[in-house]
Order: sequence, then structure tokens, then C-alpha cells
Amino acid sequence: MADDARKDDEDGLDTRRVAAILDAVEAGNTAALSRLLARMHPADVADLLEQISGEQRRRLLAMWSGEIDGDILSEISDSIREEVIESLPASVVAEAMRDLDTDDMVDILEDLEEPAQEAILSTLDKADRLAVEQALAYPEYSAGRLMQREVVTAPEHWTVGEMIDHMRSVDWLPDQFYHIILVDPRMKPVSYVTLGRLLSARREVGLKDIVEESFRTIKASDAEADVAYLFNQYHLISCPVVDAHGRLVGVITIDDAMNVLDEEHQEDMLRLAGVNDESSVSDGALETARRRLPWLMVNLVTASLSALVISRFEATIEAIVVLAALMPIVASTGGIAGTQSLAVAVRALATRDLTQANARRVVMRELGAGLLNGIGLALVLGLAGTLLFGDVGLGLVLACAMMANQVVAALGGVLVPLTLNRMGLDPALASGTFVTTLTDVMGFFAFLGLATLVLL
Amino acid sequence: MADDARKDDEDGLDTRRVAAILDAVEAGNTAALSRLLARMHPADVADLLEQISGEQRRRLLAMWSGEIDGDILSEISDSIREEVIESLPASVVAEAMRDLDTDDMVDILEDLEEPAQEAILSTLDKADRLAVEQALAYPEYSAGRLMQREVVTAPEHWTVGEMIDHMRSVDWLPDQFYHIILVDPRMKPVSYVTLGRLLSARREVGLKDIVEESFRTIKASDAEADVAYLFNQYHLISCPVVDAHGRLVGVITIDDAMNVLDEEHQEDMLRLAGVNDESSVSDGALETARRRLPWLMVNLVTASLSALVISRFEATIEAIVVLAALMPIVASTGGIAGTQSLAVAVRALATRDLTQANARRVVMRELGAGLLNGIGLALVLGLAGTLLFGDVGLGLVLACAMMANQVVAALGGVLVPLTLNRMGLDPALASGTFVTTLTDVMGFFAFLGLATLVLL
Repeated sequence: MADDARKDDEDGLDTRRVAAILDAVEAGNTAALSRLLARMHPADVADLLEQISGEQRRRLLAMWSGEIDGDILSEISDSIREEVIESLPASVVAEAMRDLDTDDMVDILEDLEEPAQEAILSTLDKADRLAVEQALAYPEYSAGRLMQREVVTAPEHWTVGEMIDHMRSVDWLPDQFYHIILVDPRMKPVSYVTLGRLLSARREVGLKDIVEESFRTIKASDAEADVAYLFNQYHLISCPVVDAHGRLVGVITIDDAMNVLDEEHQEDMLRLAGVNDESSVSDGALETARRRLPWLMVNLVTASLSALVISRFEATIEAIVVLAALMPIVASTGGIAGTQSLAVAVRALATRDLTQANARRVVMRELGAGLLNGIGLALVLGLAGTLLFGDVGLGLVLACAMMANQVVAALGGVLVPLTLNRMGLDPALASGTFVTTLTDVMGFFAFLGLATLVLL
Repeated sequence: MADDARKDDEDGLDTRRVAAILDAVEAGNTAALSRLLARMHPADVADLLEQISGEQRRRLLAMWSGEIDGDILSEISDSIREEVIESLPASVVAEAMRDLDTDDMVDILEDLEEPAQEAILSTLDKADRLAVEQALAYPEYSAGRLMQREVVTAPEHWTVGEMIDHMRSVDWLPDQFYHIILVDPRMKPVSYVTLGRLLSARREVGLKDIVEESFRTIKASDAEADVAYLFNQYHLISCPVVDAHGRLVGVITIDDAMNVLDEEHQEDMLRLAGVNDESSVSDGALETARRRLPWLMVNLVTASLSALVISRFEATIEAIVVLAALMPIVASTGGIAGTQSLAVAVRALATRDLTQANARRVVMRELGAGLLNGIGLALVLGLAGTLLFGDVGLGLVLACAMMANQVVAALGGVLVPLTLNRMGLDPALASGTFVTTLTDVMGFFAFLGLATLVLL
């Protein structure tokens, strides 16, 4: 739990604290509210604002707006940020923005409507405004939007002593930095030195002699999902960003990459379940319903496909009505198998464990697993069917349909995301609906088709 | 794509490279194999080993075993690490382990069987062995297992100059560190200084005067999932770990926390889909089948519940056989709605956006959303049913059943994970099966029950 991390001078966000804050809002007790909120970390204040209802949020902000700072604004989720900013006096927003690094300013501004964006931009320093406008010129979800432009660089020929003297003499060092980037005269990054090595080397040592072995750069146009992958794969802490000409334009740090990784995961998980990935806990019922209705409507159509298949076999069902009771078993177990295969494939594509190089082997593996589980389930279901209904034919039909559907499920679960991925689409998007439609249709068709052939 | 990150002196892992490596293995060309692998990052070599088949892996390792180092071993996924280590000569493993920080040693050793663990431990230096044994004494998946014991500390009264002189004089600094932890005489951490601030301050400045505002510690017994949450929530880069008496015992860095976050994601996503979360792309068909069979068997039982419900209404179906074709529509759309609600709730619980403080509001929101979408879907389905079959009664039955099941789905999707969470269980585990069983049973019951009342 969050409160396991002991922090003497700061309070976490527990149920009692939320209740105390809402009481203060209810009672209009501004002093108590300020006291309670002042002791909280900006990330926890932001979470609080997301967790309470829209009405409570409006009242809290009306009482407390003057104390919202840049750190809180940048922690608030996109889903309520616009609403919060609109409710604040323009002077509070301008003041809050001034404390932030440019990457955090960009993060806040990029989701606002044009007029609100303009209004805030016009209150920034000229240098900050220019930096933010340049960042906003990069595509959404690109490394250029994610990077901070404050970078600590040095020419390759400097010594440790010169570097330390330089750092002591400037006053614009970024809040967080972990490396000195060595650049050539045309500002192309060539390698980097960690601060730890800088500190443990003698003053006369050349920076060139203590650079890290491994050095990568990211292009400003790269997708942020790829940035997150790189940080996770190669354990980067920070990474220089270059423009199309290879010149240094900024740096991305691991905390931003971790944030992207977390958002990518949210996207995968919600998309697999057929939910618009911008959903948030602060959405109201209407918004929630609207975000989910599209896939429900699609499912209504695809479920009608199953109904169509079944209706072709009405004569069979009329003759042996127990088939109607048994038919969902094959379809539903197929749906589970398809979902399993699908989740594994979508995850493996995201972590790049599933690539063109091993796609064939993974598909064959799924086929094998589908066959094996198909046999296992077919034996159990076939035997149960035979014993319960005293009908070997029915047992056989159940077993064969189960087996066929398990194979279809396993293959569909991996082939659908692989195909979407090869088409350049998100493998998680719509995969679930495709695969369960496939297993439903196949399940009903195999079971009722076989029953018509064998039992009638 | 990974190869977007330009890195002149190193090759990524693309299809062509994998093919070239497998060709070299096939041809027994050790020189070519070494040349190809030497240019790759350890993380990519590890990925390669995971992506190729077991047979290819054995042949590759037989040809190349001498060059496997600690970095590669620590990158290899748990699922094949034991196999790889067993196939290597003991001397190669011992040599590989020696380069690593203790946290990486622990990560490798903790998954091995006792005898293999002992064999490797006995080859380590006394100091390393002691450190690893102490770490292994902490529970699995705890902060104690995750931390590295190499920590850079300083007494509170030191100046920047004293600190830098100290760091230049010692030779055991960790590979990666970002903060100096200030400790009191009893080794309790009291605050920390970032290396960036240390470097930009003058020699005579006291460390106490440049400490960070925000300071947290983690207990060695805390769960690693909580550690990942803390890093992500509070943008920590590194965090001191203390024992039960509050004394400093190690430090956790963000790259390890990011790794845990990524594994937690995998676990949530796969568990929601009913897959054992240790699944890996390197598993064979048999292993894959075995990891998925348990939930398939459970589903076979729960699907039989649906069959039982339907069988109660055989007389109704016999009288109006089109009901058999229509009944999966209500059940299947309910399943989708339940899955949507479930994914949102599991995700919100993982990010602690859904807490006791707002659980009531979120449940009411789901109820509202379920009602709204229920009304929308009921209108469409009811109208379609009435028009297609020219039967207002049938349309009404479809509409009412759809509405009831949407509400059950929305509520079930949030109440099941909330309940599991309150019971101290993983909300993702088994939720999917519970919820789809609920929506299936409810869907069939509502539809056939209403049909019996209204249409017979």
C-alpha cells in the first residue's frame, strides 16, 4: 500500500483523509482544507481531484484554487485537466505554468483546445513559449513531445574539472539530469558520461575517457511507444533526442518513459476488452456509457451472426431440443481459449517477443496447444455427455465440436493480432470481437452441423 | 521499431539478423556466430535465445557458451534461464556472475533449484555470497529481493567538497547511482542529495543545504508491486530501503521498478484472460496447453451451469424454436459489457484510482452506464426483433432481457474485482470467469424466463 512508504512530513491519500477533505469542503472551512492539502504530494492531490465527484471537485477548486501549482496541474489526468484549468483564474494558471520544465508545459498544453492553449502560451516567457511551440510542432505521441529541451552538454575535449567548474557557474541546470551529453562542434551527440562516474574521477581526467560503453539516440519523430520500449529493453536512464539532421534537440528521462509504458499498458488492456482507452475513473455514467457503446453495438451485430447460424439448424433443435441447452458449452469454452491465445499474442507483440522471425513457430505452437487442450476437453465433455444422456452419438458430437473449436480458437487468437499488426494497426484493437465472433460462430456451427449429420 | 534508435556500433534484432544467426548455427560456423552475436546488446541476445526453438537454442549455446556473460544471463527471462544455466559449463556461469551487482545475482539465483543455487553461491566471493544470502532471506517479490546493497551514503555534516573527495578515493562505487543518501549515526536515512545538485554546488556548501524537498523510504518487506506503484506515482529515480528498525539496507533504482511495473502489467493482462502468468513466448505447445487448461476446465464446469439453466426451459424452446437462435445475443452482449466494466475496474485498482473512498461512486456510475447502454441496446434489439419476426411480444422479451443483463454485467464487472480485492486476493484472478458465467447464466435465464411468461 502507498502508506507503507514512510514519509514523515507528508500525508498519503487514504479513506480517512479523503473524508476529512470532503468534510472541510462541505463545511466551507477553507483553513482546514488548505492545511489538509498542503501536506500532500502533488500526485496525491491530483488523484484526489480525480476520485471525487464533479460537483465536489468544483466546490473544492472554488475554495482552494489559489494554491494549485504546476506540479499538481501536470499530475492531473487528461480527462479532467481541461475542466480544472477552465475553473481556475487565468493568473493562477499562468503562475503555475512558470515553475515547470518545458516537457511538462507541453504535456499540459497539448490536450487543451486552441483558444485555451493560446491564452496560456501568451503568459509564458519568450524562451519558454518558443520551446513549447517547437515541441508542439512535433506529432502527437512522438519523442519530440516527450523530451525536455534543457540538456547539459559538453565538448568532447573537456576534462572532469572543466565540466564541474562549468556546472558550478551556470544557473539554468534542469531539475533532474543524470548524464552529461558529449557533442561534436555541429551539436551531434557522440557519447555520454554518467554523473556518478564524473564524481568519482579526478579533475584532470578527460571526459572522453570515462564515457559509457553503450550509447543510443532517439529521433524526435519516433513514436513514444517505441521510446518506452527502448528504455525498458536497454535499461536507459536518459537518452538524447536528435532532429532529422542528427543534431541534439533534447533529452528524454526514464520517469517519462515509465509513464508512457504505463499508459500503453492501459491502452492494450482496455482495447482488448473493447473500451475506448481514454476512459477514466472520473468519467460520469453518461460518458462511461458512450465510451463503451460502440463495441457493444458491434457485438450486437456479430452476435446476430451466431443467431443466423443457429437458425439454419432449427429443424435439428426442434427434433432434439437438448441440443439447445448444450450448444453454449462448446462456444463458450472456445471463447475462453481464444481470449487466452489472444492475450498472450497481444502482450508478446507489445514486448516484441513475437516478431516476424518467430511468428511461424508461435502459430504452430498455438495450433499444437489448441489440439492438446482440444483433446483433453473433448475427452471430458464427450464422456460426460455420453454418460449423462446415455447417448454415444451425442458424446461424440460434443467431443468433435469441442476439438474443432479449440483449434480454431487457438489459431484465431494468434492470427488475428498478427494480421492487424502486419497491416500497421494496433493488434489489441477489435481483436477481442473478431476472435469471440469466430469462436461463437464456429462453436455453434460445428456442434449443430455435426449433430445434424450424426444424430438426425 | 527498435531499430529506429540509431546506434552505430551495435546491431538490433531484426528478421534478417535472426536468419543469419540461425544459418551460422546450422552451418556450425562458430566464427560467424561469434561475430554476429558480439555486436548485439545483451538484452537482444537474451531475446534471441527466447525467440528461437529449444533445439536451436541448445545448438547455439553448445557452439557459443564461453561468451555468455552476466549481463546476458540477467536479461534472459525466467522461463528459459534455468535451462540455459544448466547447459553452460560451471566455470562460465561462475565467471558471468562475478561481474554483476548483487541485485542482479539475486534475480538470477532466486529462480534456480536449491542444488544449482548452492553450486553457484559457492563460487562467489565471500562478501557477495553473504549479500546474496541476506537478500534471499527476504520474501519473494519483496523490496528486499529487488534492492541493490551497494549504496553511496554520507554523514549529514559533510560538505560537497568532502563528499567529492570521498567518492574519488573509494573504488567500489555502484555501476548506476543517482543520489547520495544522508544517514544519521545509527545508519537511518534522513534525506538525499541528487548528483546534479552536488555537481552544481560549491565545495564549501554543506550537503544538508542542498537536500531534496521530498524524501521517502521503502521497507525491505514491502511488496515489489507497491514499490513499482511508488516510483510511478511519485516519479522517484531511486529510493532507500530500510529494515524493520529503520536502518538503511539498500537502494532500489527506477530501472528495476520499471521492470516490475512491466511484469505486473503482464500478470494483470494474462490473468484477466485466464492464462497462467508465467507464460512465455519460448514455451512449447505442451507447456502452453498446460498453462491454459485449468481455466478451460473451470469454464467447462461454469458453462454447464448455463446449459442447466437452458435445459429448465426446454419446453419453451420446443414450442418456439427461434428462441434457441436468439438467446446467445443477450448472453454474448452481456459478456462484452461485463468484460469492459471488469477491465476498467481491474486497471483502476492497479493504479489505485479505485479505492474505498470512491468505490461507492464508481459502482453507481457503472450501474448508470449499464442502464443507459441497456436502454440503447434494448431499443435496437427490441425494434429489430419486432420488425424481423413481426412479433411485439418477442421484441419486448428481447429488450427486457437485454436491459437486465446489461445492468448485471456492469455491476458484476466492478463488484467481482472489488470483492476479490477486499478479500486480499488479486482482482484480476478468476474475475473473467466469474463475470462471464454471471452474464451467460443471467442472459439465458432472463431471456428464456421472460419468453416463458410472455410468449407461451
